[in-house]
This record gives sequence, structure tokens and C-alpha cells, in this order.
Amino acid sequence: MSTTLHTIKQFDVELEAVRAKVLEMGGLVEEQIEKAVEALHEADLTLADHVIAEDHHVNALEVSIDENCTYIIARRQPAASDLRLIIAIIKTITDLERMGDEAEKIARMAKMIHTSERLMHTRPVDLRHVAQLAVDMLRRALDSFARLDTNTAMQILRDDVDVDESFRGILRQLITFMMEDPRTISNSIELLFAAKAIERIGDHAKNIAEYVIFLVKGKDVRHTSVEEIEKEVVAPLF
Amino acid sequence: MSTTLHTIKQFDVELEAVRAKVLEMGGLVEEQIEKAVEALHEADLTLADHVIAEDHHVNALEVSIDENCTYIIARRQPAASDLRLIIAIIKTITDLERMGDEAEKIARMAKMIHTSERLMHTRPVDLRHVAQLAVDMLRRALDSFARLDTNTAMQILRDDVDVDESFRGILRQLITFMMEDPRTISNSIELLFAAKAIERIGDHAKNIAEYVIFLVKGKDVRHTSVEEIEKEVVAPLF
Repeated sequence: MSTTLHTIKQFDVELEAVRAKVLEMGGLVEEQIEKAVEALHEADLTLADHVIAEDHHVNALEVSIDENCTYIIARRQPAASDLRLIIAIIKTITDLERMGDEAEKIARMAKMIHTSERLMHTRPVDLRHVAQLAVDMLRRALDSFARLDTNTAMQILRDDVDVDESFRGILRQLITFMMEDPRTISNSIELLFAAKAIERIGDHAKNIAEYVIFLVKGKDVRHTSVEEIEKEVVAPLF
Repeated sequence: MSTTLHTIKQFDVELEAVRAKVLEMGGLVEEQIEKAVEALHEADLTLADHVIAEDHHVNALEVSIDENCTYIIARRQPAASDLRLIIAIIKTITDLERMGDEAEKIARMAKMIHTSERLMHTRPVDLRHVAQLAVDMLRRALDSFARLDTNTAMQILRDDVDVDESFRGILRQLITFMMEDPRTISNSIELLFAAKAIERIGDHAKNIAEYVIFLVKGKDVRHTSVEEIEKEVVAPLF
């Protein structure tokens, strides 16, 4: 085998390794979010502590993938679609890391609510539905990244509206509880922040979907409405 | 002049141009935040509309700088510190764009609060102090980026604690108001989200400061405590 062929093969191996690591990081973040929401709902403080302790794994993966990407750019000087992939990865892991932070925050709120003396003044709000929507968006964003599937990515952009609507429903419910019984205010505010963290997870999943479209179509679709993207970027090719 | 020298000079011109554009974007974001907070405080709905309308400029700058960076990587194949600069820029503009989004959110809250029938049920909370702290962090983060000044960057990491504390003070104040008069709840929640947006602006400024340290020291200091950074990264050199 010639040196050039060997170099190209080595490059593909490196790219594939870094892609796999992104998916590993995404899977870990997904798990962290699910566990944090479960800890909040089941008042499982051990699980909450576990989520808080595991956040450093997410962070370590981000730093390590970042280093891999810098190495690949410096050594392999990728062009065109390979370079787009690397840049999409650098952006994706920033969003994944911030999702991990949101999971950690939810776990901290679980501890705050379930160990506080104010617990008797908490009115239950079900965050599991909206959390499921957000985790599902993340799962499909990772899937669309793995398979470079812009149809799935487009669907995620549309679904973000459902998470936002669900969040506003929870907000209205919490405001009603607080008005009916002001003693619930402190813990309702904690639950509100937890709901807000979930809504932000949906936003991050949407960002990843936009990077996938950028990656496949070579067009930056951030700051563009779903309708415009459908018309200009995706539709003509399907 | 040889072709190589010419190429090197052209590369420096491109790098300098993209650095200048980042500072321009930062200045615009700073202005947007200040105007949004003023609109909220002075009930200036025209100013709020102006902030909302201007957000697309921030977004356009992000997309344009991103394209410049991709071009430079593909065409100039930068190595070592130049590559670190490009990667730091790609990350910095993501944070700047999100700060712009937070400014837009504050402007929307200003409109919501000051046009709502619930206005009579609003108890005033002064967000200007915490906003000033956050904007000041951003200004110094841009300054440390422009002058590659890790001392300023380190100070920003320390100052983020003040913004967080200030946010918690506002939260306590708002909870007191809500408990005293439940009719203030709806608008207090809007003010709480505005305060949260400001706190997040401080977090983004801190991220930029971390990229500056990464850029100058070649070491990734995210997920590292201020004390550790001082000991391991910055101190030995000053």
C-alpha cells in the first residue's frame, strides 16, 4: 500500500473514531437527563447524587473530542465535507456539554426540593412528558447525525415548538398553584427552573439538528425559519 | 516579494479581519444587552422593538464569521496558535450569538410586562446592577480576547460568582413580593426570567474568558476550578 493510501485510510479511521465518541457522549448525556428527571420525580436522592458525580465524564469527553478535532485539522488538513464534519462536531459537543449541565442542574433541584422543609408545600407538576419530548429530540438528533439524515433533522426543528408549548403549559399550571397557595412559591420556582432546563435541552437538540443540515447540505440554516429551510434547502432534493 | 511571503501576509490580513469582526460582533451584543435592560427599566417599548429588530444583525455576523473561519482553515491550513485562535473564535461567536438571544428575550419581557394589564401588580426590582456586572464581564472578556490578556480573563472567572450571588438576591426579593401579594406573581415570573437571562450572559462571558486562556496557554481550562487554574496554568508565568 502506498503511503498516501495509508494516510487516507488512517484519516478515515480517526474521523470514524471521533464520530463514535460524539455518539458515546450523546448517549451519556441522554442517560444523565433521564436519570435527573427520574430523581426529581421519584425523590431519589442517591440517583441525583449519581447524576451530579457523573457530569465530569461528559465534560472530559468534550475536552477529549475537542483535542481530537484540533489534531485532525492540524495534521490531516481536511477540506470540504470532512472539514464541515469536524466543525459540526466542535459545535455539537458544546451543545451536548451544556445539556449535561442542565441535567446536573435538574439533579441539584431534585435534592433541593426533596430535602427542604418546604416539601409539604409542593404541588406536583408532571415534568416527565416534556422531558420525554426533549430526550426524544436529542435521541433523534444523534441519530440524524449518525446517519446524516436531514429528514429527521427537519422533523426535530418542527418538534421544538411542542417542547416550548409544553413548557408554557407547565408555567401556567405553576402560576395557578402559587396563586392558590403562596406557601408553594419557593418550591414551585425550583420546579419552574427544572422545566426551563428541559426546555433548553430541546433548544440544544434543535441546534444539533441544524448542524446536521449544515453538514449534509453545506448551508447554514441557523436563524432561518422551518418553512424557508424546507423550501430552499431540503425540499428540492427529496 | 516571494509568493510564500505574500501568502503569509495575506493570511495575517485575513486573521486580523476576522478578529476585528469578532470585536464588532461583541460590541453590538454589548449594546443590545444594555438597550434591552434600559427598555425594561424605562418601559421604553420603542427601544424594546429596536433590540428585537436588531438581533438579526448579530446572527448575520455569526454566520459570516463562521464562514470566514472555515475558509481560513481550508485555504491557509493554520497550525498551532493560529489554529487555536480560529477554534477559539468559532466557540466565542456561539456564546456571543446566544448572549444576543438573551438580550432579545429581555426586550420581549419588557414588552410583555409593560403592555400587560397586570402592570399595576408589578413590584419594582432593580436589575440594572446585575446587568451592569454582566455587561462589564462581557466588555472585559472582549478586551482580554483583543489583547490576549489572561490576567483579565482570570478576573472574569472570579467575577462570575458576583453575578450568581446578585441573581440569587433578586430571586429572594421576588419570592418575598410574590408571597406578600400573589397578584404580582405573573409579572414577577417575567422579571425572574429577565434576571436569569442576565445571569446566563455572565456565564457566556466566563466561557469567552476560558477560551482566551486556552488560546494563550494552550490549555483547556473549562471544567477546572479557578484555584486550580491559578495554580497550574496562569500563576507559573506571572
